[in-house]
Order: sequence, then structure tokens, then C-alpha cells
Amino acid sequence: MKHVYFDYAATTPVDSRVKKAMLPYFSEKFGNTMSLHSFGQEAKLVLEKSRETVADLIRAKPEEIIFTGSATESNNLALKGIAFANQNKGHTRLHRYASPHRYASPQQIQRFWRAKRCGQVIISPIEHPCIIETAKWLQKQGFQITKLKVDKYGMVNPLALEKEIRKDTILVSVIHASNEIGTIQPIEKIGKICRNKGVYFHTDAVQSFGKIPIDVNKMNIDLLTASSHKMYGPKGAACLYIREGVRIEPILHGGGQERGLRSSTVNIPAIVGFAKACEICKKEMGKEAQRLIKLRDKLIRNVLKIKGSYLNGHPQKRLPNNANFRFDFIEGESIILRLDLLGIAVSTGSACSSIKLEPSSVLLATGLKPAEAHGSLRISLGRWTTEKEIDYLIKVLPGIINQLRKISPFKVIKSA
Amino acid sequence: MKHVYFDYAATTPVDSRVKKAMLPYFSEKFGNTMSLHSFGQEAKLVLEKSRETVADLIRAKPEEIIFTGSATESNNLALKGIAFANQNKGHTRLHRYASPHRYASPQQIQRFWRAKRCGQVIISPIEHPCIIETAKWLQKQGFQITKLKVDKYGMVNPLALEKEIRKDTILVSVIHASNEIGTIQPIEKIGKICRNKGVYFHTDAVQSFGKIPIDVNKMNIDLLTASSHKMYGPKGAACLYIREGVRIEPILHGGGQERGLRSSTVNIPAIVGFAKACEICKKEMGKEAQRLIKLRDKLIRNVLKIKGSYLNGHPQKRLPNNANFRFDFIEGESIILRLDLLGIAVSTGSACSSIKLEPSSVLLATGLKPAEAHGSLRISLGRWTTEKEIDYLIKVLPGIINQLRKISPFKVIKSA
Repeated sequence: MKHVYFDYAATTPVDSRVKKAMLPYFSEKFGNTMSLHSFGQEAKLVLEKSRETVADLIRAKPEEIIFTGSATESNNLALKGIAFANQNKGHTRLHRYASPHRYASPQQIQRFWRAKRCGQVIISPIEHPCIIETAKWLQKQGFQITKLKVDKYGMVNPLALEKEIRKDTILVSVIHASNEIGTIQPIEKIGKICRNKGVYFHTDAVQSFGKIPIDVNKMNIDLLTASSHKMYGPKGAACLYIREGVRIEPILHGGGQERGLRSSTVNIPAIVGFAKACEICKKEMGKEAQRLIKLRDKLIRNVLKIKGSYLNGHPQKRLPNNANFRFDFIEGESIILRLDLLGIAVSTGSACSSIKLEPSSVLLATGLKPAEAHGSLRISLGRWTTEKEIDYLIKVLPGIINQLRKISPFKVIKSA
Repeated sequence: MKHVYFDYAATTPVDSRVKKAMLPYFSEKFGNTMSLHSFGQEAKLVLEKSRETVADLIRAKPEEIIFTGSATESNNLALKGIAFANQNKGHTRLHRYASPHRYASPQQIQRFWRAKRCGQVIISPIEHPCIIETAKWLQKQGFQITKLKVDKYGMVNPLALEKEIRKDTILVSVIHASNEIGTIQPIEKIGKICRNKGVYFHTDAVQSFGKIPIDVNKMNIDLLTASSHKMYGPKGAACLYIREGVRIEPILHGGGQERGLRSSTVNIPAIVGFAKACEICKKEMGKEAQRLIKLRDKLIRNVLKIKGSYLNGHPQKRLPNNANFRFDFIEGESIILRLDLLGIAVSTGSACSSIKLEPSSVLLATGLKPAEAHGSLRISLGRWTTEKEIDYLIKVLPGIINQLRKISPFKVIKSA
């Protein structure tokens, strides 16, 4: 069996129905949405129709959807755009130091320096690198970043979050479903706490969008990131849902597309594909989830029969298409390479971190030791995963694990 | 004659050869470049091959090309990335105020506040909105923005630029060829001055890339923006050339793709298309430019026969595919709409500004009065423009101008 793809969480192939929908927009209906002539107006129309379709999947209003180029961009926009537009919330300090009527001591100047930008942003420790790195950058700009704790399943405790919210808290950002371990967070509760405290709530829903139902109103979500290429749409399209009335600044400045919040020539073919992918997911999501859960659970049952194997993430509250394991004494990378030789594509965790060869920070946050986190394997299923493929993996995996353990240096150390 | 497209400067249809090159990367070779398995490695290989092709068109090294999602993003990255990475250049003021050994007066605090970020960025007044707006944002962050002057053809004077360069100048950004009036700047001279003064030089080459030869070394360019969808490639791909050794920071934070300078899942299909478009342009650019110049000059000759019509931009030093006119007493928008009824797509200026209905700031910078700037019309030719199309436009335009003048309120006022 060749080309067995178990890395749907990294990226998905474009559905042929999506590709078909996109094709006319490359060379025939290619207008720029900002042009006044018919080519432009035709593009503008299809853009707004696509916006409706995407909004519909999460029960948002069309005007609350801003198209971007990638989930990374959406997450950057959510965090930076909200932080910059709402900086110094709840702070009077600043005005005191900036008063033209008093002299300031060196210590005050230092504080003034630090306080020029302020406000707290709360994130979970199991966010995607594009949230973690953006938060680090915001910290350099003067914002305070608080990282929540998670339990052994990677679950955020809403009550612990509530305690972290302060007068100057601007934003809480918690990933809806983990891209690595698949754990689904209690988003509705977290959203409610944020709403009650008057704090914006953003969720990175890249892995859950199109896979499990999302209702931005019911779930009290103010901002939501979704990406096309994780749900059988093309790369190059993503969106940020921004609830009406939320104060946000752009991060890309220019021609003023997307209500001034995302300048750039609008990528119509990609957006048409994204919308088509949403349409298909809306129709097929329910049945598809059931099918994947069955396959996933068969996989989990069988892999856990291997001695010294464990499931990462929550046993029930997890994505229909995600299974994440760890194996004593083995590195995930070596399993990947062995499986790759057999034509099976799997991953250790986030694709974005797989080249770094560092232990997954998500797994460390769940309390695993670095050596344990190194032994992890993410198997993510998708639209074209068959039971035959699952059976193939179940058949070959135990042998590979055994072989690798025989040559494992970790085992020797441990048993020594 | 229906669907005559004279707005190639706004966006171009994707060349069928480009589309063909892209197609396998949607659903078959769809891997994520960051994945360790074969699907990922295949994507990584094609990414690096594409980088070579794009670099080759401007005689850059492959590792000096960073792929982005749009020219707007490239221009934002160039300005913000350079300004942030090189802030406070030549300033000792800051350290003085930040000294922990002295008290500061209210005035000093004010200055300190403003000086927290500093450094000068010089731009031309005929930049695309994504440079102008980014510069405005940088100004808000504390940077000093200097706008050069241009002559009546929209040409920057290199000697005047030299006088503006100060000890704290970080970056000079001058558009290679105007997207509105087509004027080509003396980039080589400007680059040389910047090099001699130790200042980074960026050029927005969106309109010239693939149309006229560019050599980043000969032209002393440190950073260059190019876009795929303006040269028969797909939307969603663009690049920033960054000379080796240039200090720059990312503006999108995340998984660390593109040497950490542009995080986001790499959009392989779009990049493959971009590279194919570069390959075609490299081969055909010379002949195509000659063909377009002939058509353009025929158009200009004939349109200028209309009474009260003028050419905007430089008569010789202009893009092969750009003609920009103004007509006494008429608004450009009304010409667009009339031509559109005949199936002819033209524009007033930048697509990004066409919805605003304000007079073009580019034309104002060349010394035109607002009323004159309102009467402008940009006709941009391209790969599929035929002489028949040009003849058609030449045939219908005088009648439209005459009709519009008859009902023009401006004329009445003027002749009253």
C-alpha cells in the first residue's frame, strides 16, 4: 500500500469539488474586487457570496467575516489587532506619568517606559506556535502575557482562568481543539466567563472548523480563526470572525480591502474554494464525524495493545480525526521515518514545529517529561481515510515499535 | 466587441501554462513543507526550485527571496520589518533620557515618549497605498516619515533625495514604476546614493517585475517587492527580495517558515504558479515589451488627438503597457462607466483607490489640480491585448469624451 496519508491535521488535499469551483476564477473571472468595471464588480459579488457561505458555518453574520491569507495571519491579526486597539485598558498610571505638570524620578521613567503599552493577554500553554510567538512579540512591546495551566489531558480549567482575569485584561485566547493532542476545550464556559468580565475572547478553531459544530453566539466567541487548507479547501485562504462592535486594528496596511482590516488584492479563487469547502463540510460534517470516530477508536484500541503505549489528550473530548500516542523509549521522529518508508505519512505534532526536533511544548504542558514528549506520534484522519488504511497501520506499527526499542539508547539507560 | 480588458495593472488573468503547472499541487502533491514525511519533503523541494526561478528573474540568490501572500504584505514587511529591526539608528538621545541617574522634566518626558522609537523613513509621494499607509502607521509608532517631491512626470530627483538623508535615516522606499502613471524611476542612481550613505533601499517593483529587466545588484537594491497576480501568475503569491545581511524583523509570527521571516503554511500551488509566470516572463519579456510599446504608442498618439487631452507620466520613461490620460472637464469615473457599457474595462488609477472617489494623490503630487486629477484614465495593456482592441478603443473614446463634455458641470463653470 503506497501513499497512505495520516497527516490531515497538517494540511489536506483540495477536494475535487472545491477545485472545480475555483477553476473559472483563475483565467476567466479574474477581476480585482476594487475595480469599478464589470470584471471587478463580478469579483466583488462572488466575494460577498463566499462571505455568506463561510459565515453560515459558524452562524455569524457575513459582515463579521474578514478574509485573510492564512490562519497564522488571522491569529496575528486577532492578538496584535486587539492588543493595539485596546492597549492601556484600565490603566490610569500612564496618564499620571505623562502629565506635563510634574517631574519624574528615574524609577518613574523606567516604569513609564515599560508602561507605554500595557494590558494583559491570557493564552493557554497549548496554543499553536503562531499564537505563542505573537504573544511573545506583544510582550516585547510592553503587554503582559499570562499563560494558563492545563490538566493532564491538556484541558483548561475555566475557573482558574476566571481568577487570572484582571482589570487590565484585554483578551483571552484559547485554542478550540488542540492541533496536536486533539483535546476539545470547554469553549462555551470560557467564553461566558470572558463575556461576564468584559474581556474579549478569541479562539483558534483551525482544527475544529468544519469538523465539529461551532456557533459563535451560543459559545460566546468574539473572535475566531479558521483556515481553508485544513478542511479540504486551498492554501492561501483563511478568515477571522470578528464580532460586531469589537475594537480591532489592522496589521496589514494598504488599499483598505476587507473593511480596512486586511489590505491586499482579494484572492478570489482561494476564497471561492474556501467557501465551497465550507458548504461541503456543512452538509457532510455530521456523518463524516461519526465515520471518523469509529475509525479513530478502532485505531486507538489497537495501538494501545502495544506494550508501553499511551494515548495523549482527552479520551473522550477529542477531535473525531485525531489520535496522539506516545511510546516508551522511542523518539517520534524515528517512527515517522520508518512509517514513511512504508508509504505512511504521520507526524509528531504540529507541522510547524516538526522541523525543530524539540519536545512538543503542548505535551510538556500536560505534564509529560521531555523524554516522554519526544516519543509522541500524531495520526490524523480525514475525508479519504479508509478502514483498510487503518488496518494497514495497525498491522505494521507494532513491528516498527519493537524494532526501534531494540536499538533504543533510552531503554538501556532506563533499565541500567 | 465584448470583454476588452485594459486593466492589466490592476490584476491579470492567470496564463493557461501557469494554471497547468499549478494544478497537480492542489489535490495530489499537496504536502505541507514543514512535514518530515515524503509528502512534506516533496513540497519542500518544489518550494526551493520555485525560489530559484523567481530569484533568477532579478539576478538574486535563491536564499534572498522570501515568499509572502501579497505585495501589500511584502511592502508592509519591508517597511515595518526594517524600521523595527533598525530603530534608534544614530540616536543617542534615547539612552540619555533612559539613564537611571537623572530626573527628567515634563518636557523631557514628552520627548522621551516620542523618542522611544525613532529613525527616519523616506518615501516618494507616488507610492502605492500599501506603502503610504504603512508609513503613516510607522509615524504613529514614533518613526519620522519624509515624503520626497516629484516633478511633473512623477520623477524623483536623486540629488534631492540625497539631501534628505540624515544620520538617523533607516530606509528609502521608492516605487520602481508607477502603478498609475507608469513613470519609471532612476532606481539605479537612487540605489547608489543609498548604498553610499549606508541606508537601506527598498523598491516596490510590482508593476515592473517581469515587464522590464531588473538586476538587484546592478541597481543597488536592498529590498524589492514583486507580485504574482500582476504578471499572469495567481493571486496569493508574492515575494520580498532581501539582500543578504540586511537586518529585518518578521511581521507575521508563528511556525518560522521562510527563515522565520514569514510564518504561515507555505502556499505551494500559488508559488509554483508564480515561478512558472516568472519563467515565461523571462523568456518572453523582451519581445512582449516591444509589441506593447508599439500598441501603447499608437494608443497615445490617437487619444492625444482628442481636444483637451493630455498624457500623464513621463513621455518616454514609462512602462511598456501603461498609458494614462486626462481630459478637460470630465471625471475619469464617468468615462470608466461609459466604456464598461461597451465591454471595455479601464481604470482611473490604482484599483485599491478606485472605490474612494478621491483625486489620485499620485497625480496631485505631479502638480495637477484636484479637478484635473479627477479627469484621469489609466489604460494598461497586457499579454492578450490586440491591435484590434486598441483600434476599438480609439474608435469609441472620442465620442464618449464629447458626450460627457456636453453634460459636464465643470465646463459650464469654467466657461462662465
